Amino acid sequence: MAEGELKLLGLWASQFVIRVRMVLEQKGLSYEYFEENFVNKSELLLKHNPVHKKVPVLIHGDRAICESLVILQYIDENWSGTGPPVLPANPYDRAIARFWAAYVDDKLLPLLIDTLKAETEEAKAEIIAGIHGVLEMLEGVFKKCSAGKSFFGGDSIGYLDVTLGSYLAWIRAQERIIGAKLLDETKMPSLVEWENSFLAADCVKKVLPSVERVEALGRVLIAKERASRLAN
Amino acid sequence: MAEGELKLLGLWASQFVIRVRMVLEQKGLSYEYFEENFVNKSELLLKHNPVHKKVPVLIHGDRAICESLVILQYIDENWSGTGPPVLPANPYDRAIARFWAAYVDDKLLPLLIDTLKAETEEAKAEIIAGIHGVLEMLEGVFKKCSAGKSFFGGDSIGYLDVTLGSYLAWIRAQERIIGAKLLDETKMPSLVEWENSFLAADCVKKVLPSVERVEALGRVLIAKERASRLAN
Repeated sequence: MAEGELKLLGLWASQFVIRVRMVLEQKGLSYEYFEENFVNKSELLLKHNPVHKKVPVLIHGDRAICESLVILQYIDENWSGTGPPVLPANPYDRAIARFWAAYVDDKLLPLLIDTLKAETEEAKAEIIAGIHGVLEMLEGVFKKCSAGKSFFGGDSIGYLDVTLGSYLAWIRAQERIIGAKLLDETKMPSLVEWENSFLAADCVKKVLPSVERVEALGRVLIAKERASRLAN
Repeated sequence: MAEGELKLLGLWASQFVIRVRMVLEQKGLSYEYFEENFVNKSELLLKHNPVHKKVPVLIHGDRAICESLVILQYIDENWSGTGPPVLPANPYDRAIARFWAAYVDDKLLPLLIDTLKAETEEAKAEIIAGIHGVLEMLEGVFKKCSAGKSFFGGDSIGYLDVTLGSYLAWIRAQERIIGAKLLDETKMPSLVEWENSFLAADCVKKVLPSVERVEALGRVLIAKERASRLAN
């Protein structure tokens, strides 16, 4: 099954791409990485993800797999004997990991995008409260899932770790941009401990962009957003 | 693992609930069904799905599993030796089924909801064209996935079959309400053949509500939508 070379089409700042790269690194799978152009999409991208035209796309031999959470499960199932598992073994634990991974993308992402658009202090405060709510919920989930170990996945980084962890550079960058704590050690002490363990892992260090680089991109995106609003 | 009784919290017209019931029937698993009240949510629902407060919720022993596609995978993994598999065995085929199931919920559902809100002929025509686009895409997917067999899942009803099939009563009801073909045999002949095979299966016949009943509910929802718009 594991024949064929691996290619990954991505964007360096995309949390969806980052999580796939973390799992590829953790599994020790070598792959060729292609940085896409946000504006001019490559022929390779349009050919292999004609439906959504979005990254990440994992090309394995001549077959493409799209959508980050689908790709994570594909890697887990296709290389089940290589490196640590992505999803836990137990069906109930797998369901819990899938449920909370979907929650992270459904709830956290829109709020993080909103921080780039917030104009007034009231709007900002509301978004910050929303992000605190999501992260406090995940603080409780972490305590249950990790059962005293370092990761949501227990002893090793798994599905929910990379799903949430792929947002860390954005969370820390947006704290600097908006001047407020989002992942707050007084409110979410266990999650901050998890962050420290997570950031120390090789598969994370190799892949997660620096907070400075993401912050710079965030500031460019905010400036563009404002300019387009003023133009309309 | 399979100890503990099964309870399902649902709403009869919800496609998310219908797909879970189809798979429970197909696996021959007995379960107690609780019809929720759309307005006054039960204590059981609020206790077992405090995050989203939505159906379906599968309660297995004392543990709850939420979100329909998560539940389908839980059933498949927890009762892997019982009845036909829900997801295919091959990792790539599994990825394809997951990708298209997410596509169905992301693309088809908002359009079907929009048909209930469309006021003008132009708005209606645009929504109908959108639904045709989605179903024509799925016509192509069916030809590839089924490889000449009756179902997306091959010889037996699987993950993508129940995901799309759970919308059939709504699709046919909304055709009557808006007076236009959505699943059109001239545009999607293979998908109409699939529908016939699907509707003939026992696990579908037992669970899928009649088009008449869904049509009546659809007309009530449209009337409510209009009344609330007039009141604002």
